Amino acid sequence: MDSAEIHQIVILGSGNVATRLSIALQLAGLEIMQIFGRNVRDAKILAERLGVKHTDDLKAVIPSADLYLLCLSDDALTDVIGSFPFKNKLLVHTSGTISMDVFQNIQNNYGIFYPLQTLSKNKEIKFEGIPICIEANSKTNEAKLVRLAEKISNNIHLINSDQRKILHVAAVFASNFTNYFYSVSKEILESNQLSFDLLKPLIIETVEKALSQNPDETQTGPARRGDKKIISAHLEYLNSQSEFKEMYELISKHITHKYSKQ
Amino acid sequence: MDSAEIHQIVILGSGNVATRLSIALQLAGLEIMQIFGRNVRDAKILAERLGVKHTDDLKAVIPSADLYLLCLSDDALTDVIGSFPFKNKLLVHTSGTISMDVFQNIQNNYGIFYPLQTLSKNKEIKFEGIPICIEANSKTNEAKLVRLAEKISNNIHLINSDQRKILHVAAVFASNFTNYFYSVSKEILESNQLSFDLLKPLIIETVEKALSQNPDETQTGPARRGDKKIISAHLEYLNSQSEFKEMYELISKHITHKYSKQ
Repeated sequence: MDSAEIHQIVILGSGNVATRLSIALQLAGLEIMQIFGRNVRDAKILAERLGVKHTDDLKAVIPSADLYLLCLSDDALTDVIGSFPFKNKLLVHTSGTISMDVFQNIQNNYGIFYPLQTLSKNKEIKFEGIPICIEANSKTNEAKLVRLAEKISNNIHLINSDQRKILHVAAVFASNFTNYFYSVSKEILESNQLSFDLLKPLIIETVEKALSQNPDETQTGPARRGDKKIISAHLEYLNSQSEFKEMYELISKHITHKYSKQ
Repeated sequence: MDSAEIHQIVILGSGNVATRLSIALQLAGLEIMQIFGRNVRDAKILAERLGVKHTDDLKAVIPSADLYLLCLSDDALTDVIGSFPFKNKLLVHTSGTISMDVFQNIQNNYGIFYPLQTLSKNKEIKFEGIPICIEANSKTNEAKLVRLAEKISNNIHLINSDQRKILHVAAVFASNFTNYFYSVSKEILESNQLSFDLLKPLIIETVEKALSQNPDETQTGPARRGDKKIISAHLEYLNSQSEFKEMYELISKHITHKYSKQ
C-alpha cells in the first residue's frame, strides 16, 4: 500500500457534511470504514446508507484508518478533538471557521478539508466543481489531502485559516443573506395573495447575469439609478413591515452611495 | 384585419426594455412600424437593429399603429403621455411602478404590459417563461394585450396597479439586493486576494435549492443556527469595512429573530 495515499477513512459526524462527503468519497472508490456519531440514531442511519459500521463511543473508533474526517459542528469539534484517542493519525476537520490551531499541541498530523458549498442530507449534489479548500500541518499531509480531494473535485485550493474565515464571511453574504431575501420577497408577495413563482425567472436571470458578467456591472434597480421617488414609495409601502423597511432603507443607502461615486 | 388583434406596433423608447421587447415582438411576427426616442442616436441604433424607421419628434409618430408601447423611464413616461398626439389609440406602458391612473382623463384606450424581468440591450433573453403582467382600462383592451403577450410568453397574469407595485418591491429584494450582496462578497474576497469564482458553485446551489424547495426551509448559516460566536467573529473581521458590518449585523439580527420564533 502506498503510504502517501489515503484509502481508508473514518467519518466523525452524521449531519449534512458527513452525509454528502462520505457518499461522494465512497462513490469515488475510497473505503469508508466506520461512522462515529454522538447521536447514535443519526450515525446508524448514515452508516446503513453506506453499508458500514457505526459507533457512538470515541474509544471504539477503528484505529487503522488513513484519515479521520471530522464533519462536526464547531462546538462538537473542539470536544471530539480533545478526547480523540490517537495522537499520530491524520485528523482533519471540514469547518469554514475553526482555525487549524485547534489541533496544535494535541495532534501530530492534521489539516483542513473544507468543501465550500451548502450541503443537505437529502439533496444529491455533484462534488466535481465544488471548491475544496485544503490546509495541513506538513507538506506530506497537504499532498495526501490534495490527492484525496482530486478524487471528487477538479476545483482544489490551498487556503490558509485566515483566508478560510474571509471566504466564510463572503459566503454568508452571497448565500445565507441572499437566501433570506428570497424569503422576504416571498413573504411580501404571499401577504398580498401573489405567488413567489412570479419572481423565479427574474431570480434565475439575475444570478446568471451576475456570474457570467460581474455583479458590479449588472446592478439595476431604483437605488442603482438613484431614483429617490421610487425608493420613497417603496419605503412607504413597507411601513407595515418595519423589519423589511429597515433593511430596504439601509441597503438602498449603500447601493446609492456606491454608484453615486462613479 | 381582425380589429381585436394587435398587428402593428410603434415602440416609444430605445433603452433596455424597448430593445428586448421590440426584438421579441418582431421575432414573434408582429410588425414594429417605428421607434420613437428622445435620444435620436439611441433611437436610430435600435431602429437599424430592427430594420425600421425612427423619429425623435412625437408629432411625427405614425398614426396608424394598433398599439403604442411606451418603454420609457418613469419620469419620461409622464411627459410623453402628456404630449402624445392621439387620444383614441391604444397606449400602454411597461413600468413596474407607475399606476394605470397616469392615463386617466388623457387617453381613451390604455393599459399596462409589464414584463417582470431584468432586461439588457445586449443580453439575449427568451421571453417564453417571463411573467407578463397585464392591466387595461376595458375588457376589450385587456383581451388584446393578453393575446399579444401570449405571442411571446406562456406566463401571463392579470395584475392590477397595486399588485404591480408590491411585485416591484419584492423584486427589489429578490434581484437588486441579492445582486448587491454578490458584489459585497466579491469585494470582501478580492480585497484579500481571493477570487469571486470560489463562491460561484455555492451561489448557484443556493438559488437552485431556494427555488426548487422553499427559501424559508433552505436557510442556513450562523444566524439561522443562532451561532453568536461565529457572528461575533465575522463582525469583528468586518470592523475595517463598516458599511458591510452594519448590513451583516442588521440582517443577522432579523434572521436570528425569524428562526428563534420557531
